[in-house]
Amino acid sequence: MRPELTDIKALTFDVFGTCVDFRGSIIRECRAFGKDKGLRVNWAKFVDAWRAGYRPAMDRVSRGELPWTKIDVLHRMILDELLEKFGLGRLTEEERVHLNRAWHRLKPWPDTVRGLKRLKKRYIIATLSNGNVALLTNMAKHAGLPWDCIFSAETFHHYKPDAETYLGAAEMLDLKPAEVMMVAAHKHDLRAAAASGLKTAFVRRPHEYGRNKGADLVDDPAFTINADDFNDLADQLDC
Amino acid sequence: MRPELTDIKALTFDVFGTCVDFRGSIIRECRAFGKDKGLRVNWAKFVDAWRAGYRPAMDRVSRGELPWTKIDVLHRMILDELLEKFGLGRLTEEERVHLNRAWHRLKPWPDTVRGLKRLKKRYIIATLSNGNVALLTNMAKHAGLPWDCIFSAETFHHYKPDAETYLGAAEMLDLKPAEVMMVAAHKHDLRAAAASGLKTAFVRRPHEYGRNKGADLVDDPAFTINADDFNDLADQLDC
Repeated sequence: MRPELTDIKALTFDVFGTCVDFRGSIIRECRAFGKDKGLRVNWAKFVDAWRAGYRPAMDRVSRGELPWTKIDVLHRMILDELLEKFGLGRLTEEERVHLNRAWHRLKPWPDTVRGLKRLKKRYIIATLSNGNVALLTNMAKHAGLPWDCIFSAETFHHYKPDAETYLGAAEMLDLKPAEVMMVAAHKHDLRAAAASGLKTAFVRRPHEYGRNKGADLVDDPAFTINADDFNDLADQLDC
Repeated sequence: MRPELTDIKALTFDVFGTCVDFRGSIIRECRAFGKDKGLRVNWAKFVDAWRAGYRPAMDRVSRGELPWTKIDVLHRMILDELLEKFGLGRLTEEERVHLNRAWHRLKPWPDTVRGLKRLKKRYIIATLSNGNVALLTNMAKHAGLPWDCIFSAETFHHYKPDAETYLGAAEMLDLKPAEVMMVAAHKHDLRAAAASGLKTAFVRRPHEYGRNKGADLVDDPAFTINADDFNDLADQLDC
C-alpha cells in the first residue's frame, strides 16, 4: 500500500450519487406511481427539477434564512412546489408522503454493497451525507448497506461542505482528520474535506445524471485516490 | 403478538451491562495486563471502583459542574485517580491509553449477537448508550454487534436518564416515542424512557456485577416486556 494510505482508519462516504443511484431510483418510483394513478408526466424532468431544488434549499439553511431543517422536510417543500408546477396539485397527503419517502428507498450502484463489505473488514465505514439520520438508516436497511455508523448533516446541524461536518465526523470517531478518508463522486465535496485535512477518494459514477450524461469523470491527482468504483477502491486499499 | 407491540418500529439498547459484560471483560483485560507487567493488584476491586466512579462523573456533567465531556475522558479521569490509589502511579501514558481503551473491547453476553441479528430483521436496532460514538463503534466492530445506527449521549450532549436522549433518538429516527422500545437491564433507565413515552423491555442480566451477584432480576409488569435474554425478547416479538 502507498505510504500515505497506511494511517487511514475510517472511510466516510457521500451517499446520494456516490453509493446510490438517486435519479434512476426516484424516476422508477415516480413512473410506477404515475402508471398506478393514470398520470401523464415527464417524470425524468420532474425528478431533475426535484434534485435541482436541493442545493438552493440547503444553502438557505447554511445562510441562516431557514432554521435547521432536515432533508426530508426540504425535499417535501420542493415536492409541494413542483406538484403545483406539473399540474399535480390534487395529490393527497398520503401520496405526497409516499413520493417523498422514495428518497429512503434508493438503490445502490451494482458494486456498492460488495465494495462496502470488503472495505468494512479493514476500516470503519460510515456515511457522511446531507441526508437525515432516518433517511440514511431506512435506506441502509432497504439496500443492505453495512454501515458501522451513520453520520449526517443532522448530527452536526450543518450541511456539507461546511467544515463542521468533516471535522465533526473525525472527532466523533476520535480520529485525526488525516486518519479519515472522504469518499465521493463529487469534487466539491472532496475539496472541502481536503481543506479540513481529510484524505480523499474520488469515485467515478458515470450514470449519476442519466446514462453517460454529464458526470465529471476526470481524475485529479490532488485526490489521495481516484477509483472506478468501490471494488477498485477496495483493491487500491488492499482490502 | 400482543396488540401494544404492533406499533414498534425501532429498538434502542442500553449497552454496558445489557449487551456486553463490562465487568468480566475489563477484569480479564486488567489481569492479563497485570500479569504481563508483573503487578499484584486486586483487579476485581479496581474495576468495581472504576465503574463506581462513572455515575458521579456523569452527574457532574448533568449538573453543569463540568462542560460536555465524553465517557472516554471521564473513564480516563477516574482511571488516573485510581492508579494513584492502587499504587500504580508509575504507569506510562501508553499503558493508561491501553487500559482505558479496554472499554472499546467489551465482550457481548452469549445471546447478544444472535438475538440482535434476529431482532434486526424486523426492527431498526440502535444503541442508546452513555458510551461515546467512537467507543460504541469500535466495540461493535470488535464484538460483531450489527447495529443499524449508533445513538450516544454524545449525539445529544446529554447523559441518560435525561429525556433529551430518549426523545432525541425517536426524533432522529422520525418516529413517535411510542414506536420506539428501550431495552435495558436497568430499571431506572427504562423508567426514564417510559416517562418520555417509549415502550420498555427489561432484560435480566444476572451476572452483570459478578456471578449471580446483586443484579435486580425481578419482573415489573409496568414494563412492556420482561425477558430472560435477547433470544427471549426476539421470541416475544415474533422475530
